[in-house]
Amino acid sequence: MDDIVALCKRRGFIFQSSEIYGGHNGFWDYGPLGTELKRNVRNAWYHDMVTSHDELQAPSGAPRPFQMVGIETALIMHPQVWRASGHYDLFADMMQTCRVCKKLFRADHVAGMLRESDWVASLREALGAGDGAVAFGHDSLRQWATHKKRGMKLAPGLALVREPDRTLEATADGLEMPFAELLRRAAATGGVAQDACPACGGDLTEPRQFNLMFETYTGAIQTDENRAFLRPETAQGMFVNFKNVVDSSRVKVPFGIAQIGKSFRNEITPRNFTFRSREFEQMEMEFFCHPDESRQWYAYWRDRRFRWYRDLGITGDNLILRDHDADELSHYSVGTADVEYAFPFLDPGEFGELEGVAHRGDFDLRSHMEGKLVKDDQGQLVVELDAAGNPRHKGSGKNLVYFDDETREKYLPHVIEPAAGADRATLAFLCEAYYVDEQPDDSGELQARTVLRLHPRLAPYKAAVFPLIKKEGMPEKAGEIYRQLKRAGIQAFYDQQGAIGRRYRRQDEIGTPWCITVDGDTASDGTVTLRDRDSLEQVRIPADEVAGEIARRLAGG
Amino acid sequence: MDDIVALCKRRGFIFQSSEIYGGHNGFWDYGPLGTELKRNVRNAWYHDMVTSHDELQAPSGAPRPFQMVGIETALIMHPQVWRASGHYDLFADMMQTCRVCKKLFRADHVAGMLRESDWVASLREALGAGDGAVAFGHDSLRQWATHKKRGMKLAPGLALVREPDRTLEATADGLEMPFAELLRRAAATGGVAQDACPACGGDLTEPRQFNLMFETYTGAIQTDENRAFLRPETAQGMFVNFKNVVDSSRVKVPFGIAQIGKSFRNEITPRNFTFRSREFEQMEMEFFCHPDESRQWYAYWRDRRFRWYRDLGITGDNLILRDHDADELSHYSVGTADVEYAFPFLDPGEFGELEGVAHRGDFDLRSHMEGKLVKDDQGQLVVELDAAGNPRHKGSGKNLVYFDDETREKYLPHVIEPAAGADRATLAFLCEAYYVDEQPDDSGELQARTVLRLHPRLAPYKAAVFPLIKKEGMPEKAGEIYRQLKRAGIQAFYDQQGAIGRRYRRQDEIGTPWCITVDGDTASDGTVTLRDRDSLEQVRIPADEVAGEIARRLAGG
Repeated sequence: MDDIVALCKRRGFIFQSSEIYGGHNGFWDYGPLGTELKRNVRNAWYHDMVTSHDELQAPSGAPRPFQMVGIETALIMHPQVWRASGHYDLFADMMQTCRVCKKLFRADHVAGMLRESDWVASLREALGAGDGAVAFGHDSLRQWATHKKRGMKLAPGLALVREPDRTLEATADGLEMPFAELLRRAAATGGVAQDACPACGGDLTEPRQFNLMFETYTGAIQTDENRAFLRPETAQGMFVNFKNVVDSSRVKVPFGIAQIGKSFRNEITPRNFTFRSREFEQMEMEFFCHPDESRQWYAYWRDRRFRWYRDLGITGDNLILRDHDADELSHYSVGTADVEYAFPFLDPGEFGELEGVAHRGDFDLRSHMEGKLVKDDQGQLVVELDAAGNPRHKGSGKNLVYFDDETREKYLPHVIEPAAGADRATLAFLCEAYYVDEQPDDSGELQARTVLRLHPRLAPYKAAVFPLIKKEGMPEKAGEIYRQLKRAGIQAFYDQQGAIGRRYRRQDEIGTPWCITVDGDTASDGTVTLRDRDSLEQVRIPADEVAGEIARRLAGG
Repeated sequence: MDDIVALCKRRGFIFQSSEIYGGHNGFWDYGPLGTELKRNVRNAWYHDMVTSHDELQAPSGAPRPFQMVGIETALIMHPQVWRASGHYDLFADMMQTCRVCKKLFRADHVAGMLRESDWVASLREALGAGDGAVAFGHDSLRQWATHKKRGMKLAPGLALVREPDRTLEATADGLEMPFAELLRRAAATGGVAQDACPACGGDLTEPRQFNLMFETYTGAIQTDENRAFLRPETAQGMFVNFKNVVDSSRVKVPFGIAQIGKSFRNEITPRNFTFRSREFEQMEMEFFCHPDESRQWYAYWRDRRFRWYRDLGITGDNLILRDHDADELSHYSVGTADVEYAFPFLDPGEFGELEGVAHRGDFDLRSHMEGKLVKDDQGQLVVELDAAGNPRHKGSGKNLVYFDDETREKYLPHVIEPAAGADRATLAFLCEAYYVDEQPDDSGELQARTVLRLHPRLAPYKAAVFPLIKKEGMPEKAGEIYRQLKRAGIQAFYDQQGAIGRRYRRQDEIGTPWCITVDGDTASDGTVTLRDRDSLEQVRIPADEVAGEIARRLAGG
């Protein structure tokens, strides 16, 4: 993985965001090549999903023909959207922070983490504490706390270690108490018992709600009313515009609304390169269908979306389609499947999510009509009520029921949602494409060759054009071919620096599928060399047919 | 303008964001057609700026050939970026809010606004107050305050009006004071004089810094250290990556870095449809050049960017290129020009900014090297120091000097920045395209026809395909042509609903340049009707040549 990260920086695919300021944890910038690659990923998705969609015929495997439109909604939506959708509650965990080491813990994890903590185990052993009560023995506690390899090493943040006298004198010598309470008194500050940090022993803050949505305020005043959120997903943009789209574009169920755009989640621990970042780009589609057909559509989209990654080059065992078990499902979903990839930063046999395809029932449209939903005792989705019997989070109150003017039926459509990550897809394509082989160099010696075997649709440049040498009219001829490609709308690169072998290597490393070389024969017979990145095969073709040939190969011909 | 806004909603170009929740002030959603239109605007910009750029030849008017690459940087950058760039200080105004009517005022505008306020004028008149001191006369003040057409009507928020007794008793009857102080005592709450609201007379908060950047916090704890900002422009992403791009992509000065992406400004008064919104999309390019050539490059980019809008259809007097006067220039700029458009919501003769082209000197790179810059007494840019003599806002400390390996010269490049707004450009193209004429309907009667005369590159659909009637094989033939267009990558629409004249009108209204109709003759002679949106000319062409003909017309043939 380190090699891929290094290549990404060296060749301008992906940089740490704000790198000259030391970077910004959880944020990434795409350099020139990364921008082209990610544009190609996005454009492939939008093209395959929307632009090339044929609404007159059912694609293979689909129950019937359907329509598909695009949408682009605001990143900062009305805050009530997130209350009704459940993100305001569901995305929130109770968290505690260590006042000493600043580490953050989920409140409901602290007790378990303390049980597994090294310093707690050491203290338990020193006191000979079992399951029952234990004595707050000043001598044994002081001995442990001031021991270089015990308290001082394992729990440098613990009050008992930092200030043994003050901490001990707050509790009577020998007082019996449960071991958990002893830990809280060992972490006491100002005489008040505190939860102890599983990592360093420092005192934790009270549990506070921590929501993964980034907060901000619109307008000048920071009131509750003006509090807004950066969207944690693009999907709600489609749901709240369902009615607008139906009313303005003459689509009929079944149809889909597709959107590409940034989303934000304030991850506690961003990690694994761009895989888990705080700002990321999604490619989501919400497919609205009749409830009776929804399971067929779910199967269709699940299989189609899995195929998309295969068609773009992830053909081996690194890609799997995994149906969620019943206990993994969200409370509203009757089926969810993940497209997963074996990223190299994961343990062998582990996979990371590229895309989730979920059958969401009518959960979302109902939430935005009626208010935030929960499951009742019978397992039915009902509006969650507050103590006064009012909806805890109101919906819009707008009627989002769909009227089918052919069957005269009124119903809330069910939704199938394929939700892909543009950054994760880009990273998976990069990882899958990364390959090192050995090839003879100009002198015949075997050299390691780094290749990105990207699918031609995704490669930042489709073709590179080289004059073999910088004279005899070769640069001019190569320039003509470069312009021929540009005019045909083909991403092309021109390079005349260095030995031809090194130029090939530079293109291999960034995934350019084809290189065209103008050489001594070009002037006489009008042909150039076309070299294939993967097969390394070289053929000669007429110079004026280069753009046509590249277009043909791009089209899969 | 209302007609355009109505069309945008009716046909699915632009919706109020979160409309089912009553909308979200300053935010907009793009519907299916708006998304295609805006995608086309963005793609036209990126294609013309980056993809089709020929780095081997100087374009007409350019001093020399240059390189151009794209980039996509995080929306949430390291907070120090905005301190060094000056946005943290320059974007901040001191503001006061009315505690009664919640209106917001720039603190330095309050005195002037009070002078122009109706209620202040009425009170001044009632007291016969001139320039000198005035008496705090209880009787006359009470009379004015309780008068239905004076105090009670004009200053309902004023403490003197709401609670005359308590307000009067706080100051002795007849005490002489400047009129401004009398106003503060009339607005007093709890006996403490307050600034009065120019609008309603309510008491204002103390002046507070209000920054146009949206704030948020990264990570779990809301500390100053974790405070971050949503970018108010994309440009800084290019500056902080200048070194990364130079090191990773072998570009040499002169070269440009282009970026498309969302930016955010917490506007106090979003207005004029999408023109001034809180979330918007920019298309910016930073062009790095040698200082000696910078004025030539500035002239080149200014003229080229103006031409871009002309080439995409804004050919008349609604578009102007306006050079900034010396007193309008930012303190670091030696030249700035705006491309402006006469939006229909503006007064006649007024223009709104579409794009600014600025000569920024080395201001940005220097700021990120050294720290935030200000002009000294001699008019030189120097690092701003705090009281202790340290930089007020530190730069990165990284050396951003460029080394030209041919001339062996080291220098900080100068920057030319064409900064366009994607939403504003989209809106201008829509406004310019909107047109109503009269055309005979199927029965020969004149009917108003609404047309969007969008440039074909920008039109959401390039072609619509109709079967004249829903039988005799016409839908099947029309479906074939629709697929022929889709396969050629041409945005196409299929419609078989309603009279053919109505179908033409529906396409005219959304700007589809060409309509293709399959009719009774198609089966016998293999031709279809191709109708032009603007000339209304209809020609017959072979059905199997439709995609080729549309592609030819799109290419300007």
